[in-house]
Amino acid sequence: MFKKKDVFFSTFEEMANTIVEAVEYFAKGVKDLKDVSEFARKMKEYENKCDNYTHTILKELNKTFITPIEREDIMALTTSLDDVMDGIEACASRFEMFNFHKADEYVFQFADIIVRSSHQIKSSIDLLTHKKLLAIREYTISINQLENEADELQRKCIKELFHTVTDPIELMKRKEVYEMLEVTTDYCEDVANTLESIIMRNS
Amino acid sequence: MFKKKDVFFSTFEEMANTIVEAVEYFAKGVKDLKDVSEFARKMKEYENKCDNYTHTILKELNKTFITPIEREDIMALTTSLDDVMDGIEACASRFEMFNFHKADEYVFQFADIIVRSSHQIKSSIDLLTHKKLLAIREYTISINQLENEADELQRKCIKELFHTVTDPIELMKRKEVYEMLEVTTDYCEDVANTLESIIMRNS
Amino acid sequence: MFKKKDVFFSTFEEMANTIVEAVEYFAKGVKDLKDVSEFARKMKEYENKCDNYTHTILKELNKTFITPIEREDIMALTTSLDDVMDGIEACASRFEMFNFHKADEYVFQFADIIVRSSHQIKSSIDLLTHKKLLAIREYTISINQLENEADELQRKCIKELFHTVTDPIELMKRKEVYEMLEVTTDYCEDVANTLESIIMRNS
Repeated sequence: MFKKKDVFFSTFEEMANTIVEAVEYFAKGVKDLKDVSEFARKMKEYENKCDNYTHTILKELNKTFITPIEREDIMALTTSLDDVMDGIEACASRFEMFNFHKADEYVFQFADIIVRSSHQIKSSIDLLTHKKLLAIREYTISINQLENEADELQRKCIKELFHTVTDPIELMKRKEVYEMLEVTTDYCEDVANTLESIIMRNS
Repeated sequence: MFKKKDVFFSTFEEMANTIVEAVEYFAKGVKDLKDVSEFARKMKEYENKCDNYTHTILKELNKTFITPIEREDIMALTTSLDDVMDGIEACASRFEMFNFHKADEYVFQFADIIVRSSHQIKSSIDLLTHKKLLAIREYTISINQLENEADELQRKCIKELFHTVTDPIELMKRKEVYEMLEVTTDYCEDVANTLESIIMRNS
Repeated sequence: MFKKKDVFFSTFEEMANTIVEAVEYFAKGVKDLKDVSEFARKMKEYENKCDNYTHTILKELNKTFITPIEREDIMALTTSLDDVMDGIEACASRFEMFNFHKADEYVFQFADIIVRSSHQIKSSIDLLTHKKLLAIREYTISINQLENEADELQRKCIKELFHTVTDPIELMKRKEVYEMLEVTTDYCEDVANTLESIIMRNS
């Protein structure tokens, strides 16, 4: 279907690698939030790096006549990968904006789910590059299951939040962090869905 | 355009029937919220049922070469129907998460709008199955009007909320319930818009 | 590519003009919020006007066999322009719903960003009408930069909000106004992205 080291696919790989790196930095970072501004700054750096890959792809798309997969699919995959990065960066920024120095067990669990999703995304992109389209489905199913896990976790921790926290501003802050973490797993699911359409149209 | 008992269309009908059933259960349920966990559990059951229909359609799409309407349209209609179900289930789950045992008149009014929208969706899907595409437009217009009604209702009740409720946590809970109910009518409108594009491309 | 006074393009121009007018009215209005209900009413009027243009385009699309650009692009551009108007109208409505009579410096800054974006949108639509597709890119880049500005502004003012405001209900109101203003710049960015795809497919 496409030659191995196509610029689109090698850039998708860079994006996936950057996402894995950023998400692992996030998961480690939330365990020690002493310097929230450094934490947020570093995550913003990952996001800028990912933005540059997005621009590379768009520029390439404008000067390439024949693309390895449909232009719409390249656009959709680029956007959905970029959304994952924006999502996790937005989560990190909340710790700084809310002056939040202590994450709880639930945040660690969300971070763990997102780390696992990011690895599944990376594996899927590798398979896409090597034209092993049907093998991707195993990973997209996993990503969907991880999103379900995150959804259940969110319901559990928001329920507990309303049962235990009485300070409304504290409640607001923690609720928004949980919700943004859950939304990030929705973005991972969007990557999976985009990959599913690419498989469907190319196999 | 397509044969009458096509698997895609019969599954869309099942989805629409399940949505009507779930929404009617919801509208009855909010009038008596003594057992919120049973209420939420039952709504989750409807959602799982709808998820299964979604998977049926996706699996079928992967093994079918010629589809009765464009693959993209089948995907978009499936997703938008599934979103309606996810929306109403998410509303129900809030009553449990927030330990909310008393819905107000506004919730009943939202529920009534969503019940009416779900019947319009069901009628539209029936017409789609029977290839009466142009007759669908009457229902999509109705669904749009119901969404406008819900939007006005939301503004009215959030205005009242800020005027009358002084407990910030109580306010937060009720605001989120109203907003989720309104979002569910947006999802109904997405179904209508998807049907509009299908009509446009096939008539 | 298309004849100069095509009904689709002239209606897009009307939509862009109405958006500029509404956004400028908004920016002036937030400086003096004595009569919030008149402010909200007038903004709703602009929104209705924009809705009528949307209906004109959809009706025209249904009776036109050959369109100047792809039907999907016409739909996407219509929807994204309509979203900008809905966004700014929703912002205005909050002042009334929240009984909010005093906007702050941050609201003025957001309004200024949105005014500038709306002019960039208008210029883009004019270029589209005159088939100067490649010249549009300068404006879409600008709109993206303005969205980035709004995103940074939002982070700054929400951070300050949590540092300075202790009344949770006051905090909730102002947070929602800032967020809705930022979301409106996202909608402007969606217009830019839609224009980018139109350029890509037609040049």
